[in-house]
Amino acid sequence: MNNNDKSMRFFFEPKGIALIGASANPLKGGYSILSNLMRGFQGNIYPVNPGHGEINGLKCYSSILQVPDPIDLALIFVPAEPTLQAATECAERGLQGVMVQSAGFAEVGEKGKALEKELQTIGRKSGMRIWGPNCMGLVDAVKRHVFSFVSPAIWDDGLVPGKVSFIVQSGMLSAGFLIDIMSHGTMGISKACSIGNKVDVDECDLLEYLMNDPDTGTVGLYLESMKDGKRFLDLCRRSSKPIVVLKGGKSKRGAQAALSHTASVAGDRSIISGALAQAGAIEAGDFIQLTDLSRTLAAFPGTSSPGNGRVAVLTYSGAAGIVSSDFLDQHGLLLADLSDGTKQKLKNVFPTWMPVSNPVDLWPAMERNGAMPVWEKAFRAVCADPGVDAVFFHLFVGGLAGTPDISPLAEIARKAGKPIFAWILGKRKEAHTFQLQCRDLGVPVFREIGRAVECMAAVFRKTS
Amino acid sequence: MNNNDKSMRFFFEPKGIALIGASANPLKGGYSILSNLMRGFQGNIYPVNPGHGEINGLKCYSSILQVPDPIDLALIFVPAEPTLQAATECAERGLQGVMVQSAGFAEVGEKGKALEKELQTIGRKSGMRIWGPNCMGLVDAVKRHVFSFVSPAIWDDGLVPGKVSFIVQSGMLSAGFLIDIMSHGTMGISKACSIGNKVDVDECDLLEYLMNDPDTGTVGLYLESMKDGKRFLDLCRRSSKPIVVLKGGKSKRGAQAALSHTASVAGDRSIISGALAQAGAIEAGDFIQLTDLSRTLAAFPGTSSPGNGRVAVLTYSGAAGIVSSDFLDQHGLLLADLSDGTKQKLKNVFPTWMPVSNPVDLWPAMERNGAMPVWEKAFRAVCADPGVDAVFFHLFVGGLAGTPDISPLAEIARKAGKPIFAWILGKRKEAHTFQLQCRDLGVPVFREIGRAVECMAAVFRKTS
Repeated sequence: MNNNDKSMRFFFEPKGIALIGASANPLKGGYSILSNLMRGFQGNIYPVNPGHGEINGLKCYSSILQVPDPIDLALIFVPAEPTLQAATECAERGLQGVMVQSAGFAEVGEKGKALEKELQTIGRKSGMRIWGPNCMGLVDAVKRHVFSFVSPAIWDDGLVPGKVSFIVQSGMLSAGFLIDIMSHGTMGISKACSIGNKVDVDECDLLEYLMNDPDTGTVGLYLESMKDGKRFLDLCRRSSKPIVVLKGGKSKRGAQAALSHTASVAGDRSIISGALAQAGAIEAGDFIQLTDLSRTLAAFPGTSSPGNGRVAVLTYSGAAGIVSSDFLDQHGLLLADLSDGTKQKLKNVFPTWMPVSNPVDLWPAMERNGAMPVWEKAFRAVCADPGVDAVFFHLFVGGLAGTPDISPLAEIARKAGKPIFAWILGKRKEAHTFQLQCRDLGVPVFREIGRAVECMAAVFRKTS
Repeated sequence: MNNNDKSMRFFFEPKGIALIGASANPLKGGYSILSNLMRGFQGNIYPVNPGHGEINGLKCYSSILQVPDPIDLALIFVPAEPTLQAATECAERGLQGVMVQSAGFAEVGEKGKALEKELQTIGRKSGMRIWGPNCMGLVDAVKRHVFSFVSPAIWDDGLVPGKVSFIVQSGMLSAGFLIDIMSHGTMGISKACSIGNKVDVDECDLLEYLMNDPDTGTVGLYLESMKDGKRFLDLCRRSSKPIVVLKGGKSKRGAQAALSHTASVAGDRSIISGALAQAGAIEAGDFIQLTDLSRTLAAFPGTSSPGNGRVAVLTYSGAAGIVSSDFLDQHGLLLADLSDGTKQKLKNVFPTWMPVSNPVDLWPAMERNGAMPVWEKAFRAVCADPGVDAVFFHLFVGGLAGTPDISPLAEIARKAGKPIFAWILGKRKEAHTFQLQCRDLGVPVFREIGRAVECMAAVFRKTS
């Protein structure tokens, strides 16, 4: 692992970066990459373009061979054919790696495939690592590294640092999806790695690096192919961090589509799912589900025994309690049997006519005693109960009574070491504000009971 | 059916409504009901409260017996015990129905159960229909009838009329969920019927009424119990309108919770699911899923042969196309085999290197020719293809290139008689605006590919 670490660190923490294909035209990707680099990267930046003396106040070099030390990484963003010459010179200059963001390789047919093979040979002969081609590079929200040709305008929405790193084989997931996540305030992110055609660096190299990356708590992957399934599953098995995998091309037609997308050969649904489950990876089927599972597992990685999955449900709605019970059952989780002591504590805030049972319907108690005191008492009671492994609570946000303050509840659960999960309904604006608060407090919040329970099941490693 | 129609119409289109338990105190439910009635109901409104001469400018009556004609319905909102006296007098006054919104019946234990039995007897003896007790009444967004004690403040967010009617056995679904739907602009609604303890009027009576209601295109139900399963399934079988059912209490523990919630005895998961499927009802498992299925089926009820479910996928992302293919396969839908003519039309806007296949990745074409012209050409091509039954299109909303105008695309599909489904990613604000446009155009839009395909499968009556 240390070996791989050494051979990959220059991609994530380069001392100096050359940009081959730097442009002074704000409409070009080569300008965007430069702007993105200047926005957050603290090391040396060397634009390379024979037609310019300087760009954006930075000295511009006519060739990578002229670039001074320290330099260990080059980003290449020129058309496919000149990419080969650039990569050859990078190897000659002794760079440790290049990230080829140029397109026009295997994804565009036979001619591109031949170029890609040549690119691969350059890497193999020199030992220089090649990331890409046909990729969107790397975004690191913790270090604020944006090594990508995506327009700098998209970062205005704010890269929120978090514990989840993504490895994705898709341009949409590298740009559009990040914008969606940022704009919706879905979650914080550590690294997003767009791997493209994987001529050399692949999901395994990156996964191994991220498994040892202190900024990464959980790794989420979207893959259309696995270059080395055995190594991938072996890494999953060895990982102390949760790994969530969305495998595209599990069906016959999906696999055909994958072949034309990134020239990947995909496999069979049941074989893939079985292998992933055996290796301890969590499987996602959809994009937002991938983020939901990843952000939940980043909040509750469950590396120390995750318990039995006995859940206390605190709700304001009998119906929501019932539907939660049905989903818990479906996903192999249990409704906790509350202890007599817990029931007594709850009885104290309940109307006399109301029996205490789990799901705990707090509505009648809140009508009598106000929402917040009831929430606090209920949280304290169930978090102190040794028969409760997790709390699933339901909130209505933006109602006439206002939105309960989540922070003391999160604190009670944190002290008790119990994962909590929120399901919310409510007004759109207030629900968004609440969700952002929850994100910052590390409390996973969901709009659908089924999705919440799915993620809960992942924390307790129940497969359903 | 006509018989039932006659015996239920006074609940939905009463000539005059008495409100027993009208209050002059704005903090009381009896004031809210009155305000809600005055907000939209066009018939006569008669507040009943012996302590007042008038409320809100309306003459107040000391008893229902004093209320003049025309009067066919009373809403009762007094405590459980006086409810009996009020109901007795309503029967004596010759009303056709009462809607009892008071709580304190079977849901609060033995004493309440006895009261409920007495209430039932009053109805049975007189022939007067009783809706409730322990319910939140009726909201009709088309007629703007709000027969409910819910605070008038919640309607500020706007009741948008639509074709979906709900029948729900839950207070949360009658109030909080409606606020959520209104605030998020999820969908338009026709009627929302909160049935409570079902002492007389039950889901079957309401379903039968709504099956004949011209304002209702699709019925969505949340049920914890079925009073007469045989009649319910028979109605589902006979219905020409899609019926979506979320059954709470399908698991053992869920059923126990249902028992304590609305004193309902719930049943077994597989038996319920099998029976619903056989009767042609569509089953939902979660609340938002219930709305997603209902709004989709209201847009595309599919009463005239819904075809084979051969779907053209128009995307801007290879990955999204692949994941869509996987979900289509999982749900028994097919990727349409595009005709040679269609392929040729698409080839005209594609870069030369790119083969045309379904899923159709429009991104390279849009880069060359601009988004909107490519969207229009692609929509026209696939909608004209007799081998295509539906279009699933993917959009990024709020990107640098702006958001495509959906209305000409919706028009192309409408003219071709083909259902279309949108999956969107993008910026939060722009996504919301887009979603509202889609709602008003009758185009179902989704944030998750899996959910979109689930709803598509329901339109084509595929069970998975």
